[in-house]
Amino acid sequence: MSKATLALVAAAGAATGAAATAAFYASRSERRPVPTPSAKTDISRTTPAPPMPSPVTRHPNDITTPVNPAGVFQYGFPGPVNDLATRHALVSSFDRRLRNPSWVAEHITPESLSQHNGDRKHSYFTEDPAVPEKFRAKLHDYYRSGYDRGHQVPAADAKWNQQAMDDTFYLTNMCPQVGDGFNRDYWAHLEDFCRRLTHNFPSVRIVTGPLYLPRRDPADGKWRVSYEVIGSPPNVAVPTHFFKVIMGEDGQTGGHVALGAFVLPNAEIANDKPLTDFEVPLEAVERASGLEFAQNLPAHRRRRLCSEVQCSLLVRDWSARQNEFQQSGRRQIQSQRQ
Amino acid sequence: MSKATLALVAAAGAATGAAATAAFYASRSERRPVPTPSAKTDISRTTPAPPMPSPVTRHPNDITTPVNPAGVFQYGFPGPVNDLATRHALVSSFDRRLRNPSWVAEHITPESLSQHNGDRKHSYFTEDPAVPEKFRAKLHDYYRSGYDRGHQVPAADAKWNQQAMDDTFYLTNMCPQVGDGFNRDYWAHLEDFCRRLTHNFPSVRIVTGPLYLPRRDPADGKWRVSYEVIGSPPNVAVPTHFFKVIMGEDGQTGGHVALGAFVLPNAEIANDKPLTDFEVPLEAVERASGLEFAQNLPAHRRRRLCSEVQCSLLVRDWSARQNEFQQSGRRQIQSQRQ
Repeated sequence: MSKATLALVAAAGAATGAAATAAFYASRSERRPVPTPSAKTDISRTTPAPPMPSPVTRHPNDITTPVNPAGVFQYGFPGPVNDLATRHALVSSFDRRLRNPSWVAEHITPESLSQHNGDRKHSYFTEDPAVPEKFRAKLHDYYRSGYDRGHQVPAADAKWNQQAMDDTFYLTNMCPQVGDGFNRDYWAHLEDFCRRLTHNFPSVRIVTGPLYLPRRDPADGKWRVSYEVIGSPPNVAVPTHFFKVIMGEDGQTGGHVALGAFVLPNAEIANDKPLTDFEVPLEAVERASGLEFAQNLPAHRRRRLCSEVQCSLLVRDWSARQNEFQQSGRRQIQSQRQ
Repeated sequence: MSKATLALVAAAGAATGAAATAAFYASRSERRPVPTPSAKTDISRTTPAPPMPSPVTRHPNDITTPVNPAGVFQYGFPGPVNDLATRHALVSSFDRRLRNPSWVAEHITPESLSQHNGDRKHSYFTEDPAVPEKFRAKLHDYYRSGYDRGHQVPAADAKWNQQAMDDTFYLTNMCPQVGDGFNRDYWAHLEDFCRRLTHNFPSVRIVTGPLYLPRRDPADGKWRVSYEVIGSPPNVAVPTHFFKVIMGEDGQTGGHVALGAFVLPNAEIANDKPLTDFEVPLEAVERASGLEFAQNLPAHRRRRLCSEVQCSLLVRDWSARQNEFQQSGRRQIQSQRQ
């Protein structure tokens, strides 16, 4: 058995709150009965078992079928289940295999950003009880991983209410993000850019999420996706990139929507790198994520965000604010941000 | 922009049958208007836009919210959509991001295997029109990739009807598999083992699918998932492993179910390697895949497959058959299998 497979077995063995399956199989190597060939049936020698009364099903095109592949669902539908969570501040869809959100959607307006009733000092990172334990990202998975618990919907977008801000602290709203140079820097500036869009649009919608993109391996010319997996056992994927799909609405029913899509690497990015370097066609995000964002938005209502507004970051102002923070205890802020 | 991002942009640009999104953004670098700063609004300088009449929504716990994160769904729900296909021979669930099935379920019985009305000579590998073109695996993605188009539900399990056999040739039932030593050898023996289980059970259900498992990198001790992506542009993932979840039913309503779960690497495996080396607890497959297979099957109905029957391959018999094939034109068979 490969090391990877072994890790999975170990994962199952180490499970807390284990399901009936685990109870039955747990510590297989210990409980496995000593093989006694006589007690087993050699399936190559026995005669066929009497046929089960088979569900003779008629398909629309009149094939009489001796089998019923969907019958396995009597034991439970395999999924994937996407764990959609609708909260005050966001709607999130969770990927149980990668233990990251698939996407998280939010909505900001001049009004929502003008209210300051929530403070991140009172919010705490929280495992999401809406996801079964077996598939949940856990606080200890991030612990000492070297990555920040990176908000997909930023806490600062949900200051209008403490409970809304708390909503953003569920791990279903987090991905492992590089801290210095990304989550605490360029990515934060991008979040700030989104908020400033409310100066131009009365309503801004943002969908944010992780990507796992291939790179060409110079050694053999092949394309490979490669990403770290953190936690013990290793089970939470570290995305290679993140996307933001931004929609600036003009406030009219059936009005124009300024669309922008950005893909950033989960890596340190120099603050002087233009934001437009990361602008991509929406379809590129769709092909890479397997998602769709605007299939019901007709072409005549679409505008290109970076033609409507200047797509650039305000790093200097932000640095000034960072300096203020520094004076009043930057460390505290950063540890919160992690 | 990273090379990976560039590849995606190229992918979007090269799209055939492109969506409205693509039509709008297509060849962005060509159509992008020449930046004229005066024509743009500097969002850092403008005054806030008048607030949009906001949907003041009351949540169950009486928070008056100024935002509506779910409002973005007016433009289309992002997904993920799992493209469930219910066919005569199988039910499949497709992963649009990895362009592989998530799982494919089948059902075999002594009766279904005894009927020989279908022949793979008359079946052809087919792109699945049920999946939107943008997310579909394509014949040309596999072409010259070095990998077989590996059936998840084997063609040989659907000989009872030509249309059923044809069902197994959709690319939604395929994953890129290593040919020699795996798809054409050990994996084929495992498929044969499953069929022989109908000597012991009147009804056998099998769920098969790909896995993408992490390995510990000896260089830095970190766990990483790494897999090749084939096609042009690179978009179809090459799984690192495959699982089979096997359920032998005793034919009684509410009767016993003999459960076995196996995880095999997508690599050459020596024929003398015992099948039991690849047996894993069902929960290990569930944690790795994000799926569940038997959540509604109570523990008292479960039996361990490899305690009920001898979990071993019949390689010698198979080799003999392979030799027969060889004499009657093995090449033809193999090229079909690819």
